[in-house]
Amino acid sequence: MSEGIPNWLKKRADLSPNQEALIFEENTYTFKEVFDKAKKIASKLTALQLGRGSSAAVLFTNHADSVFILYALQMAGVRTVILNNRLTAEELSWQLNDSDAEVLIHEASFTDKTALIDYNKRRVCTDELDKMDEADPIILEEYELQEVTTIMYTSGTTGNPKGVMQTYGNHWWSATASSLNLGLHEQDKWLCTVPIFHISGYSILMRSQIYGMPVILHRGFEEKKVIDDIRKHKITVMSVVSTMLRRILNVLGTEKLPDTFRCMLLGGGPAPLPLLEDCLEKDIPVFQTYGMTETSSQFATLSPEYSIKRLGSAGKALFPNQIRIVDADGNELPAQTEGEIIVKGPNVTIGYLNREDETADKIRNQWLHTGDIGYLDSDGFLYVLDRRSDLIISGGENIYPAEIEGVLLSHPGVADAGVIGTEDEQWGQVPVAFIVKNEATVLSEEDLLELCQQKLAKYKLPKQIYFVDSLPRNAAKKLLRRKLREWLEAERGSHEH
Amino acid sequence: MSEGIPNWLKKRADLSPNQEALIFEENTYTFKEVFDKAKKIASKLTALQLGRGSSAAVLFTNHADSVFILYALQMAGVRTVILNNRLTAEELSWQLNDSDAEVLIHEASFTDKTALIDYNKRRVCTDELDKMDEADPIILEEYELQEVTTIMYTSGTTGNPKGVMQTYGNHWWSATASSLNLGLHEQDKWLCTVPIFHISGYSILMRSQIYGMPVILHRGFEEKKVIDDIRKHKITVMSVVSTMLRRILNVLGTEKLPDTFRCMLLGGGPAPLPLLEDCLEKDIPVFQTYGMTETSSQFATLSPEYSIKRLGSAGKALFPNQIRIVDADGNELPAQTEGEIIVKGPNVTIGYLNREDETADKIRNQWLHTGDIGYLDSDGFLYVLDRRSDLIISGGENIYPAEIEGVLLSHPGVADAGVIGTEDEQWGQVPVAFIVKNEATVLSEEDLLELCQQKLAKYKLPKQIYFVDSLPRNAAKKLLRRKLREWLEAERGSHEH
Repeated sequence: MSEGIPNWLKKRADLSPNQEALIFEENTYTFKEVFDKAKKIASKLTALQLGRGSSAAVLFTNHADSVFILYALQMAGVRTVILNNRLTAEELSWQLNDSDAEVLIHEASFTDKTALIDYNKRRVCTDELDKMDEADPIILEEYELQEVTTIMYTSGTTGNPKGVMQTYGNHWWSATASSLNLGLHEQDKWLCTVPIFHISGYSILMRSQIYGMPVILHRGFEEKKVIDDIRKHKITVMSVVSTMLRRILNVLGTEKLPDTFRCMLLGGGPAPLPLLEDCLEKDIPVFQTYGMTETSSQFATLSPEYSIKRLGSAGKALFPNQIRIVDADGNELPAQTEGEIIVKGPNVTIGYLNREDETADKIRNQWLHTGDIGYLDSDGFLYVLDRRSDLIISGGENIYPAEIEGVLLSHPGVADAGVIGTEDEQWGQVPVAFIVKNEATVLSEEDLLELCQQKLAKYKLPKQIYFVDSLPRNAAKKLLRRKLREWLEAERGSHEH
Repeated sequence: MSEGIPNWLKKRADLSPNQEALIFEENTYTFKEVFDKAKKIASKLTALQLGRGSSAAVLFTNHADSVFILYALQMAGVRTVILNNRLTAEELSWQLNDSDAEVLIHEASFTDKTALIDYNKRRVCTDELDKMDEADPIILEEYELQEVTTIMYTSGTTGNPKGVMQTYGNHWWSATASSLNLGLHEQDKWLCTVPIFHISGYSILMRSQIYGMPVILHRGFEEKKVIDDIRKHKITVMSVVSTMLRRILNVLGTEKLPDTFRCMLLGGGPAPLPLLEDCLEKDIPVFQTYGMTETSSQFATLSPEYSIKRLGSAGKALFPNQIRIVDADGNELPAQTEGEIIVKGPNVTIGYLNREDETADKIRNQWLHTGDIGYLDSDGFLYVLDRRSDLIISGGENIYPAEIEGVLLSHPGVADAGVIGTEDEQWGQVPVAFIVKNEATVLSEEDLLELCQQKLAKYKLPKQIYFVDSLPRNAAKKLLRRKLREWLEAERGSHEH
């Protein structure tokens, strides 16, 4: 079997040149137009001597121009490190240097931020890119499925972000697996209000090319604009997290979405019952999913007919995918038994960039050990109990407690630190911190927040800091975060009295 | 990227157990039921010591039981030689021995035919299979995409049929490529009246498993039953060749098919203009395709909006596929220039069974040289001018002139023989033969037909035999079939006067 298949965007521009590909604000671009735009940018990449096997980092917002650059990089065969634009200069510096990207391409609006970045390779602002000379563009005629096309950083238990390598094949299989699950209609249009620097947004772009489907791209999530555009463009599918869906329902009030809307693809943890009931009442089909950067998006999905009956479940693994629950020794566990969730499928990452040991530790015999805890019920439906390393999901962003703890511990006045997530009406979850001071130190909440602001993206800042005498740790000194959650509940309980 | 994906039928029975999988005559089977049936047969295969890497040949008709056996063999990992039940005992013997199949599993109704087969390995009649002991079934948990699952024989220029090896991956990619082209609706139901021993029918079974889609299986093509079932079951898609479509239209008369019907997938050569016009008038969307056993079905497709505008075209290569036109030296030719059609894609066969030389000759650098002649227009649409080795397509069956010529030449009274196809109202095409007798031989049309009946399936018998003084051959002694066609036209012209 050949592993080389035609350049997706070029093929799509050949098969359906006049089909709408991208709608951004007042502009609509066909696949032919998107291809031409991307090809023009590719000609500049060629002039920059960026081609197959090179690497580039990109920093930009949700914008049509960003899509063209992403497509150009993919067509040119440049491994693309897609940076999260909400990170601080310090966080970005770390990822840029870790990935060893040959060039940083950034939107003009981020010039202030990039000025603070510690990175000594070439930087190209999108303004400059526009003015740059063109060369005869060298674009790939075929994509080799086993080749890496994108790298997205994700934090883990250690607190050090790791670059997840995604191949052309990973994205291909993710897109086709999704279509086998959700179906594929000629009239499909996908609304993207999630960041295209995350796999949730980027995967929509891949589906667009592979399906020949228009994407309606928003700069960010604005519930009123969402409802307006679903109506105006007859959007059929949208990717959301719970808080977004709640806000859409709040604005909808007593009204409904048009009948043409057929799928809310809901990631980032299970939806609460009242939300699902409200959706049911409004005939909004909710597909709850489980997926992560390492699985190149959607991996398991619960179809709407089960959403209430199997409350809290993320469904079953998509057609090419498999899920097992294992104990600490890697032995498969029976139904209804908690353990680590491990996953296998052709959409699973080939590993972490320049981290062979961690890759070998996480991916064993083609099974990715997610670190997430869950169980399968007797019918094989997945229930996720704890996200890996007590992951906090806040407004669709992943926050790793260990990363915040690392920053807090770097303060000379801090003896110990523990971070957990707590429920928040607006964001779903937010981080809170527990601090043990060094003896004889004068340390305020403000001191610590100031430090965090320097080091951490805004969404990662602890919403509350509690000073305590000691942290609950087991014999092996492992932090017992569940204990912290009990403390928090007790703390809040006492305030309510 | 992992190449192992879950056992399709088992996965489907897990994901959508109660979904209809197969409707045959008065019986409907869900995916759970089909899986259980196939698993039961697999337990007998295990008892027969047939498992991964074994090979079995099958001879049966379009029947639910045949589907269960095919699925059982696929799940057990047995390479399955799928025999054309219209072949003579002599033709079957050749394929059985060439493939070296370990066992022949045949339907009870073919006992008379198999009695004449020259094959000294195990034979199992489906009646016996039913009564056979069961073992704990050993079925594959995963399918390795690069492994061969089916072998279908196809003749070629030499007249010797060759076993085309199709991998799990070939069928997977074919099914997904088709869905990216035709879309995938929850309500889809595919009508199969073409033989499941051909790739046209077998590929429908693969799509059924992969999409989770019901197949309505008919024993054969009966236009009235087709129309009844399209109405009764709300069938959405059907695979046809031109003659079938014409017969459907004739019976439909002034009536229409229901709105739910969305696709006539038309293979076996381009449709004539009047047929397409009639379909347009009746709102029957016709998707003309180009494909072959070596491409595991559909490879290029023309969407209905182009059917009249690009009359005679087979459209463009499906998303993962590529088509080029080359000259005799393998150089790519520009648009509008005739040459050999070569194809590349992950649905293209890995080669011919036990024929390394022919495989190397036909598949060069992952490009399959089809032997078909055609051109691409300036927009990239494919036009097929001559099927490989002047292939004759009669009622959906491929007939290779060289094979019939070989039989005719085996008669001691025949000095030379040439076969071409000619148009036929009922079958699309039928073969006719031109014979040069040996001097001093008394030879009648009946003598030759008698010989052909022994050696060739009925549909391959020449409908007319012309005795001539010599055959048109070029300097290299290559038969000029186009010249024969001119003779035939002249011959018929003279009869009309």
